[in-house]
Amino acid sequence: ISSGEPLSALCTPALVVDVDKVKRNAQRMMERCHQLGVQLRPHMKTHKTLECADIMTGGSRRCIVVSTLAEATFYADHGFADILYAYPLPFDKVERCAALSERLDLFQVLLDHPDALERLRKRPLKGGRRWHADGVELTGVYAHCGNTYNCKGVEQIQAVAQETTSFTLQFMEKLKAVGISCKSSIGSTPSCSHPVSDMGKLSEVHPGNYVFYDVQQSMIGSCGLEDVAVRVLTRVVGHCPHRNQLLVDCGWMGISLDGAGKLPTGYAIIEGHPDLKLLSMTQEHGRVEPISGPLDYSKYPIGSLLTLIPYHSCAAAAMHPVYHVHSEGRLMGKWTPTRGW
Amino acid sequence: ISSGEPLSALCTPALVVDVDKVKRNAQRMMERCHQLGVQLRPHMKTHKTLECADIMTGGSRRCIVVSTLAEATFYADHGFADILYAYPLPFDKVERCAALSERLDLFQVLLDHPDALERLRKRPLKGGRRWHADGVELTGVYAHCGNTYNCKGVEQIQAVAQETTSFTLQFMEKLKAVGISCKSSIGSTPSCSHPVSDMGKLSEVHPGNYVFYDVQQSMIGSCGLEDVAVRVLTRVVGHCPHRNQLLVDCGWMGISLDGAGKLPTGYAIIEGHPDLKLLSMTQEHGRVEPISGPLDYSKYPIGSLLTLIPYHSCAAAAMHPVYHVHSEGRLMGKWTPTRGW
Repeated sequence: ISSGEPLSALCTPALVVDVDKVKRNAQRMMERCHQLGVQLRPHMKTHKTLECADIMTGGSRRCIVVSTLAEATFYADHGFADILYAYPLPFDKVERCAALSERLDLFQVLLDHPDALERLRKRPLKGGRRWHADGVELTGVYAHCGNTYNCKGVEQIQAVAQETTSFTLQFMEKLKAVGISCKSSIGSTPSCSHPVSDMGKLSEVHPGNYVFYDVQQSMIGSCGLEDVAVRVLTRVVGHCPHRNQLLVDCGWMGISLDGAGKLPTGYAIIEGHPDLKLLSMTQEHGRVEPISGPLDYSKYPIGSLLTLIPYHSCAAAAMHPVYHVHSEGRLMGKWTPTRGW
Repeated sequence: ISSGEPLSALCTPALVVDVDKVKRNAQRMMERCHQLGVQLRPHMKTHKTLECADIMTGGSRRCIVVSTLAEATFYADHGFADILYAYPLPFDKVERCAALSERLDLFQVLLDHPDALERLRKRPLKGGRRWHADGVELTGVYAHCGNTYNCKGVEQIQAVAQETTSFTLQFMEKLKAVGISCKSSIGSTPSCSHPVSDMGKLSEVHPGNYVFYDVQQSMIGSCGLEDVAVRVLTRVVGHCPHRNQLLVDCGWMGISLDGAGKLPTGYAIIEGHPDLKLLSMTQEHGRVEPISGPLDYSKYPIGSLLTLIPYHSCAAAAMHPVYHVHSEGRLMGKWTPTRGW
């Protein structure tokens, strides 16, 4: 596939990324954080690519969050620093964490158990490095406000954002009262898409999904459906009139099983076809049927293209070894995510 | 990780394959088919690796089924031939199918619509090759008996196997009556694990999952739980006494969301811990809680290893860029699956 070709030149299933929407989503989050006066530390787990990390950090290659050590290593290998590994310190990976700490300007790990502190003390860093100060020192407090994912609408999102912010700030006060001064970070795409002013009193926020968004985020109210930057392209590969269904070439290998039972249209929204739903996928096949009434097969000849808006872009992207990037429907290149742990 | 080390040397989550069970499952299927007098054409979609394909074909590198053209190309690149692409001919991939047909001794495609036949006629093969005979000729009839997946127990499996076999054989007779003589192939791991004698009248069978098996197959009755050759290893990364839960490092990235609502123990069976269930996974975390009663945290210190038997091994394997292979708990090496389409 050459650059400039239309999306229809792709073999399906294919995950496509609208780079203009990615840039717009990233730019808006940077502006929002700038206005709040809070440092943005974008999470990489949704896309796991170099290109998207550059867009999210405005090219600085500093101050990111990752969900796996594979991501941490991948970004470190490409010159990123100030990487926060947002995971309770895994005891099988202390040596790998130490190696990253010895190698990077700044590598941050999370602790939530006294045993984890012991593990760090038992593995002092080499080369004059320290797990911050003498032995181990607290750098900051990290919270997620994952309960924003149960919200519907801006009002509910902001209520949770306010609650999490207030709890975190109160906790910072308590720490200060016993002589500990440190950073604070909360995250989640819903709360950072609709921040409350108190979030400006935090040191950092760490959303991630916002760069792609998805149907789930649009249902929560984080974004409009027009902000969703990813699609899974699929083609009709069969007509099944005895079941009133189309067979398409996107199964759970192409979009994941995330979203089961969450949408009236099944595992995704089929763009431009609100009357259709995607249900009961196998590994490489999806079954599409009308929400009601008989299917007009003449509208969907074998080989015709359908465009799926994923329920959960993190899960859909995780199924694809490569993403196809376009601007206004013209292919520009590929992004290759890292994988594994 | 060096060869010979115990499984506990692995960072988690990790997909581990018991090579002895793989060989035993493969051997039993070969013997079963030999006794029936039917050609085994094993499906590669569950594992997508070279090593496992060698075991399933007894080293012949001939006569396999694949679910994607990425698999077809991967196996062709490694000297495999007589590859059947078990997919209704996708119109966006006719050129790639033609290229494989021109390159391999035998590459088979499936048609289930007259438009597909037209597509083949419009792309004659080069180098003296033909889509079998003059223009396009029927090589055989391919059916899946996927309805065996609704069975419980050998009796129900064999009833479906008999029904599918009878339908297929009757169809072959009808074809013969109009002068068409061709091959016949049915498949599914349940039916081929408990074949009926009439299946010996078919040309081929094409099961695939049997090489790994999984909890789903054991519930159907295809195998015993002791035959399941794959596990996902995970470690405890947190104690959540306020929720009566453990946090483990296997989320849906490590085992997939397949099996939701199918098992009393959640997304998997936790080996040796029938009192625990795995529920509500996020991308990189799983929550484990007792089926009833309070959790005894002293039994599960942070860092301790749990072993998950996946509900669906095809889906679990698809999440891993590498499989760790062991014999009797001693690591022997890695298998790397192909991915994409």
